Amino acid sequence: MTDAVVAGGGLVGLSVAWRAARRGLSVTVVDDAPGAGASLAAAGMLAPVAEAGYREEDLLRLGLASLASWPAFAAELEAASGMPVGLRTTGTLVLGFDEDDVRELDALLRFQRELGLTAERLTPREARRREPALTPRVRGGLLVEGDHSVDGRAVHAALLAAAAAAGVQLVRERVAEVVVERDRAVGLRLTSGSVVRAGTTVLALGAHSGGLPGLPALPVRPVKGQILRLAGADGLLQGTVRALVRGRHVYLVPYGDGGVIVGATVEDRGFDARVTAGGVHDLLHDAIEVVPEVEELELAETLARWRPGTPDNAPLLGPSSLPGLVLATGHHRNGVLLTPVTAEATAELLVSGSLPEVAAPFTADRFAVGTSEGDPRCR
Amino acid sequence: MTDAVVAGGGLVGLSVAWRAARRGLSVTVVDDAPGAGASLAAAGMLAPVAEAGYREEDLLRLGLASLASWPAFAAELEAASGMPVGLRTTGTLVLGFDEDDVRELDALLRFQRELGLTAERLTPREARRREPALTPRVRGGLLVEGDHSVDGRAVHAALLAAAAAAGVQLVRERVAEVVVERDRAVGLRLTSGSVVRAGTTVLALGAHSGGLPGLPALPVRPVKGQILRLAGADGLLQGTVRALVRGRHVYLVPYGDGGVIVGATVEDRGFDARVTAGGVHDLLHDAIEVVPEVEELELAETLARWRPGTPDNAPLLGPSSLPGLVLATGHHRNGVLLTPVTAEATAELLVSGSLPEVAAPFTADRFAVGTSEGDPRCR
Repeated sequence: MTDAVVAGGGLVGLSVAWRAARRGLSVTVVDDAPGAGASLAAAGMLAPVAEAGYREEDLLRLGLASLASWPAFAAELEAASGMPVGLRTTGTLVLGFDEDDVRELDALLRFQRELGLTAERLTPREARRREPALTPRVRGGLLVEGDHSVDGRAVHAALLAAAAAAGVQLVRERVAEVVVERDRAVGLRLTSGSVVRAGTTVLALGAHSGGLPGLPALPVRPVKGQILRLAGADGLLQGTVRALVRGRHVYLVPYGDGGVIVGATVEDRGFDARVTAGGVHDLLHDAIEVVPEVEELELAETLARWRPGTPDNAPLLGPSSLPGLVLATGHHRNGVLLTPVTAEATAELLVSGSLPEVAAPFTADRFAVGTSEGDPRCR
Repeated sequence: MTDAVVAGGGLVGLSVAWRAARRGLSVTVVDDAPGAGASLAAAGMLAPVAEAGYREEDLLRLGLASLASWPAFAAELEAASGMPVGLRTTGTLVLGFDEDDVRELDALLRFQRELGLTAERLTPREARRREPALTPRVRGGLLVEGDHSVDGRAVHAALLAAAAAAGVQLVRERVAEVVVERDRAVGLRLTSGSVVRAGTTVLALGAHSGGLPGLPALPVRPVKGQILRLAGADGLLQGTVRALVRGRHVYLVPYGDGGVIVGATVEDRGFDARVTAGGVHDLLHDAIEVVPEVEELELAETLARWRPGTPDNAPLLGPSSLPGLVLATGHHRNGVLLTPVTAEATAELLVSGSLPEVAAPFTADRFAVGTSEGDPRCR
């Protein structure tokens, strides 16, 4: 019997396990392929300001809190694991290519300023001074100095090491169901038939969080994203470049030694794992349009995975309608950004029984589906 | 001591070995990764008419001879191996997308007719009746009923089986050099140091044929080609579609169950194995332009390999300036098409000592480089 068992060894599940173990709990993580889900495809942008969405102020606040935690989280993770996580604090450029794109940039800037966020309007010349590889056809830009990035795969590798060093047990098996006894989650049954019993069960299965037997219905659906990894771009980009190319979004995120991640499609196709001709074409087309030299880079990898989407694009955190079951899922496009705040808030809940204020708006009872008349506390 | 040792176990090397073994010779093939070179990337087009080039009448004649041999070659290979090779005899469409493209089609048609070749001019409506998946934006077409295709990888797998059944020994090691004694090739030295001695040594190393120690200088250079393999296209195309998209060539070759090969870039970059963002983009762009539904297909594989290019785009066949050394290389873009004629002509030379007429224009002594005053006969 362990204090907590975490279903899912992606960025979220592992970081929850690591933080909880560091606070003295015994923790087991169950995943047959840790880090092979959305974590594998994540671009690693820490960009709540550049991504600020209308009517999503709570999510923005959560993102800003997590962004503020990232430097300390990264430093502690690097110290605990002895591995670099590739935090880049060079800021994020947002670009537009036609008049409509630029109007959208201006609207984004106004919205950011209303919220007290810091962003700076750049002329095309200023944008190209910052990123000389940009096409001369850029029409305008925004610079968000505070939006950063990490190398998502490096973070996951470091979390595996740090969690192990903190005493987290990793069981490399597939989760079959949440075991419920007397209306309370008491652990996980694995596909091998064995059961991991725990005081609290944490659900961190990403896009697969909605379909596990034993669970209350959760409004999590897969939102397919295709991404590309390019190689040979050493020195090409200083920081993340996001662009609206005639209404279509693309981003280029430099990482490691000359790597660039180009993303991402947003597709409602269920668990379709296919990398498609059209998806890859559009990403390459838009990336080349923004940075012409991309043409010469190696196409090192193509990949499709599923974001855990929710009706309001915000995560599901904290206690659920099933006592003993805690949620750490539904992070949609923000899994990497929200990793520290999710880990700290969930560890706090596991240790003290109360969910920190910043996470309170994100409990599942905000949706009709997934709530119940039961006791919302988890333990 | 074997009658013949063949350096290279791609389509050409294996087929030479198979045909020679069937005619009673003892044959050894040396290749550390048979079929992993240009054979792996070949689209499998048997299209000498659609590809007919000005000033290349000898090559056209060789291609037509080989095309005529393909049905019997395929049937015998399938019988010998018990494996299908995917011969498709549905003809080839050649399309144009702007006025210049269509003018080029007309010029090609005139040239084909001058040569007595059969091709038929199609209106856009006729082209789309034949291939309903074509974009309505096609401006004109040529139908070449006689140009076919095979599944290159299936052919290679069948050749491996047929060659083994015919007694060919396959040594899975890398060729280090041609062993020359008293101005005569007497076999191959492998990188392990061991030597395979043979009456005749056949050079079938594709793009790597130019750089082997012990060899006379050969005018063979790597011509990089990138190709894509798409999946999920069952029933989408009846036969090969070649297109000029505003001056740029693209082809789509259906194979197997719903596969389509899209090719190919032609790049002068030495042995650069990188699949590039620009190469893949251009291929996808042009393929989607020709057949819009390509957008929905799975991008199953991307690959770069090297054609063995020669100064006149034609192969190097028959005896070389080094007695005991026979050439079966330099097939450039025509390796699959020219496999039967190369195999038969080379086997004939190995057995009887004389090279068939059809192959005579392709001996290396047509170039200044690679010739010598020595006896051109090989044995």
